[in-house]
Amino acid sequence: MKQVDFFYFFGSVYAYLSVMRIGGLAAAAGVSIRWRPFNVRTVMKENNVALRTEALKVPYMWRDIERRAATHGLQFKPPPVWPTDPELLHNLTGTLAAAEGWGEAFTVSSFRAWIVDRMALGEMPTIEKVLQPLGKDPHSTIARAKSAATQKLYADETEAARSFGIFGSPSFVVDGELFWGDDRLEEAIAWAKGEHALQRATAKA
Amino acid sequence: MKQVDFFYFFGSVYAYLSVMRIGGLAAAAGVSIRWRPFNVRTVMKENNVALRTEALKVPYMWRDIERRAATHGLQFKPPPVWPTDPELLHNLTGTLAAAEGWGEAFTVSSFRAWIVDRMALGEMPTIEKVLQPLGKDPHSTIARAKSAATQKLYADETEAARSFGIFGSPSFVVDGELFWGDDRLEEAIAWAKGEHALQRATAKA
Repeated sequence: MKQVDFFYFFGSVYAYLSVMRIGGLAAAAGVSIRWRPFNVRTVMKENNVALRTEALKVPYMWRDIERRAATHGLQFKPPPVWPTDPELLHNLTGTLAAAEGWGEAFTVSSFRAWIVDRMALGEMPTIEKVLQPLGKDPHSTIARAKSAATQKLYADETEAARSFGIFGSPSFVVDGELFWGDDRLEEAIAWAKGEHALQRATAKA
Repeated sequence: MKQVDFFYFFGSVYAYLSVMRIGGLAAAAGVSIRWRPFNVRTVMKENNVALRTEALKVPYMWRDIERRAATHGLQFKPPPVWPTDPELLHNLTGTLAAAEGWGEAFTVSSFRAWIVDRMALGEMPTIEKVLQPLGKDPHSTIARAKSAATQKLYADETEAARSFGIFGSPSFVVDGELFWGDDRLEEAIAWAKGEHALQRATAKA
């Protein structure tokens, strides 16, 4: 089965749209998704991308996401806490979850808690609320999330993102082909199916 | 008839996609387009948006536009000259053309000359090639484009763009609602028709 590598950051607002949509799109297309949290802060800094200092982009972003969410039938109001996950605890827990095979469930629940339930990522009440229905003990899970092994895995995933030329979240990689932004998700899925217009044009040429 | 204000820069590569698509989309939707060249360089600088220093975004951009162009059935290869129009001569001529009612024809021909015929914007051979089929004398037209009146008009249009919160090219404004990027063009047209999902959700609420 063709695979889309889904690179995202717990705290990226546009990633919310993809987190809520990618499972359904992938299932309909017969494509598998690899859920890969990475540290977008490191990568943006290296590339001089600094959304928060781009004065007009931030208010535009909230409105744009509100419109895109409406188009996709998703709930959205600008989250009360942004930026969020200051110590990357939510990202580390997501990295552990992905390594242990429960990354999708943890991610979808976390973004829902953040955007719909208006909780802060990276704080214990939020993490506990997400972990309990998944049958994960908060304290032992957090201990594993903070371990040197998980921290190394998160750094390695960030390095993998960097190696694909990724500079923002969410990003999608299929056979080395990079797509950036929730608005490119359908293109990434089409690419995985070999049905993108550029693949067809190239095949004909 | 509902109107979309189309703000763009001669030299913005993503604007090429919109320039080639907006006429057909607007006609099909029964929406009118106001063609408004503006100085995106000024606005980006003020907002700390600096595409060329964002190391990974530029190669991504070329590939992304190539894919988007294929999706829309448009020719595209990264232009040999970019950035282009160093003295803004093409932008000033476009501003004059818009004021005199031949902005669309001048713009579409100019972007085709740049991307398809691989000529540089702002250079006399390119401007002459575009003006002649439009029945415009190059020398008197350029003189008017360089006049203080046209320069003031271009500055005023840039100020108008700024007043809408615009920070990049292409942008679309409908009833004060701002859309940024060629990938938001269909949304802007839908907004002009009152058929955007967020308008419908708001009307229901």
